[in-house]
Amino acid sequence: MPAIVTLLTDFGLSDAFVGIMKGVLLTIARDCQVVDLTHEIPPQDVLAGALQLRSAVPFFPDGTIHVAVVDPGVGSQRRALVVETEHGLLLGPDNGLLSPAAKLLGVRRIFELQPGTHTLATISHTFHGRDVFAATAGHLARGLPAADCGRRVDTMQELAVPIPRSEGSQIIGEVIHVDHFGNLVTNIEASLLARFSGSDLLVRVGGTEIVGLAPSYAAVAEGSALAIVASWGTLEVAVRNGNAAKQLGVGVGVDVRVEEKARTR
Amino acid sequence: MPAIVTLLTDFGLSDAFVGIMKGVLLTIARDCQVVDLTHEIPPQDVLAGALQLRSAVPFFPDGTIHVAVVDPGVGSQRRALVVETEHGLLLGPDNGLLSPAAKLLGVRRIFELQPGTHTLATISHTFHGRDVFAATAGHLARGLPAADCGRRVDTMQELAVPIPRSEGSQIIGEVIHVDHFGNLVTNIEASLLARFSGSDLLVRVGGTEIVGLAPSYAAVAEGSALAIVASWGTLEVAVRNGNAAKQLGVGVGVDVRVEEKARTR
Amino acid sequence: MPAIVTLLTDFGLSDAFVGIMKGVLLTIARDCQVVDLTHEIPPQDVLAGALQLRSAVPFFPDGTIHVAVVDPGVGSQRRALVVETEHGLLLGPDNGLLSPAAKLLGVRRIFELQPGTHTLATISHTFHGRDVFAATAGHLARGLPAADCGRRVDTMQELAVPIPRSEGSQIIGEVIHVDHFGNLVTNIEASLLARFSGSDLLVRVGGTEIVGLAPSYAAVAEGSALAIVASWGTLEVAVRNGNAAKQLGVGVGVDVRVEEKARTR
Repeated sequence: MPAIVTLLTDFGLSDAFVGIMKGVLLTIARDCQVVDLTHEIPPQDVLAGALQLRSAVPFFPDGTIHVAVVDPGVGSQRRALVVETEHGLLLGPDNGLLSPAAKLLGVRRIFELQPGTHTLATISHTFHGRDVFAATAGHLARGLPAADCGRRVDTMQELAVPIPRSEGSQIIGEVIHVDHFGNLVTNIEASLLARFSGSDLLVRVGGTEIVGLAPSYAAVAEGSALAIVASWGTLEVAVRNGNAAKQLGVGVGVDVRVEEKARTR
Repeated sequence: MPAIVTLLTDFGLSDAFVGIMKGVLLTIARDCQVVDLTHEIPPQDVLAGALQLRSAVPFFPDGTIHVAVVDPGVGSQRRALVVETEHGLLLGPDNGLLSPAAKLLGVRRIFELQPGTHTLATISHTFHGRDVFAATAGHLARGLPAADCGRRVDTMQELAVPIPRSEGSQIIGEVIHVDHFGNLVTNIEASLLARFSGSDLLVRVGGTEIVGLAPSYAAVAEGSALAIVASWGTLEVAVRNGNAAKQLGVGVGVDVRVEEKARTR
Repeated sequence: MPAIVTLLTDFGLSDAFVGIMKGVLLTIARDCQVVDLTHEIPPQDVLAGALQLRSAVPFFPDGTIHVAVVDPGVGSQRRALVVETEHGLLLGPDNGLLSPAAKLLGVRRIFELQPGTHTLATISHTFHGRDVFAATAGHLARGLPAADCGRRVDTMQELAVPIPRSEGSQIIGEVIHVDHFGNLVTNIEASLLARFSGSDLLVRVGGTEIVGLAPSYAAVAEGSALAIVASWGTLEVAVRNGNAAKQLGVGVGVDVRVEEKARTR
């Protein structure tokens, strides 16, 4: 069965960078299936890349090879890793990019890539996505054991993913991502909302108050804000057929507060 | 022969949404060929999605599975459909998105998807592209008969695609799409132009008058407007090496009039 | 072994144009591997397309079929070519787009495509990427010899790629590309820098002076400009974790001067 290799980068699509990575991959592993996760991670935004990667890995079959390159330290002494997990491999720079996905998939062993044996012969100062990661992924796709990529190491760089806190009866989380539609994705897991009955919950973000959880975008009036448990399994604030980020003037990092709605008699 | 599955959405490429759909597809049907039609349909613009889908389906082999998701009603009571046509399958929400492509390909039978059997086990409120459509497409790609996806229904939601009208000797159509180059794609089929001799035809749009049909963009001077029968088989107004939408200040919905050029003696 | 077909165009991704090309390809050569190089070449910018194509072709296996369509002359008398090189085939309009890549790969024979036999039955005025190039690439992917695509011709349109000049001890090159990160890619090959010791070299571009070559982006302070030999094998001016084009106010065509740094005693 041909290997599946996913690619996630901040390279954009206006250059041939991503196509070139695929050329390197297919030169080594001619029959692998390559899947783009996204290449529009904001330049050098390791956290944004890490969150997108984590959102995607559970939906791929066991054995998938995930290559992620958001790599402001390319060419420096930062390490390059292959992380063997319970469900597949992760390749990328050791800057925290891989750690949320690795945790989710369950880390088995971590290896530090040794340049030379399973990379391109010449390694540039600026494009290890091509010279190191795509090449090594190609060899892994052809069956190279992860342990042959380099020496085993004990730890990888961790990334501080913001987590919600409680304050009295409030949950205070934050917007961790604004998606293509302008939806405000928060870090408040659905499980944290179990203490509220859906209709009695009050969500406050950037001056806007929303009462209750909507069962669908279409459950509120056109142009109205709503709170919903969305595709990352967390609370999301959206505007029906609109752009919540623009309409509410809210972006990544803004607090989102959830509490019991005060009852008036 | 591995199945071909096409994807058309309004999800954009800045999130991993599309990559995730492919993960679901490949988990179920490991060897299918996935082709992106476009993911840049303007958010919730069902008509734009329907027109792009219709423009693409004739160029795929019989048996192709087309998945289209522009779905403002996701999570509500709107139905999800599998449409069996003379030349392949169409999957998507029942909001008109599939209907122009379905008509073009020739409808045989329509089925309403039943959540549960051929979807992911958990279905989110907001991402049926992943939980329902990609999963079901995967099963269809593996050979599941369309009739096993759900109960047969008689009709699907139709979409009002604007059609040209005649007024005296004039044909009055409209711009139905502005493409990446700024070309103004109209709904005036080439066959409607047969009554005019090419050189005697006058096209008027947004204050601009164009005489005659050009055989190519390069047939007029740099920066000049031209009328041409283009890749959708309809009249298009373009500017050579320029952006007609910007230069003429014209967008979707604007009238385009074609008439016989008045002859002066 | 299924053929690899790459696609490079100025079609963008907001229309289904590229997906349609893949439909045509897969209808003819069902099992070929299609790789997108980029579809974001600025409209009609043949030189930008040629440079991206040249940057990518060395990273694909021998026998790859590269289809490139930046084609302002579509539908006119401009010729369509198949170029057989030492390492693969190039298809595209005869407007210079293919020539830098062809030179790099080593030209063997050039053929002028004859419409009709290995194209779609109907050829539009505006979309030869679909009707001619994708169709012919499909036949080539299935094993059609290049020589059967049309008559042999002696020459193709050459493209003037700017080359650096020397003036006294200075090398004067120019910015030939601004990449997704805002990095200023120049036409000054690394080999031209061999005469300088790295630390004694002075790079001047648009009022900014940079001393020495950096070994990595991370070797300078956040927000500082640096000079580096980058992924095209040429000198690049970048800003660490920033956008050099915006910060330095420099774009394609601007002079880049390299000289020995004056020594003060």
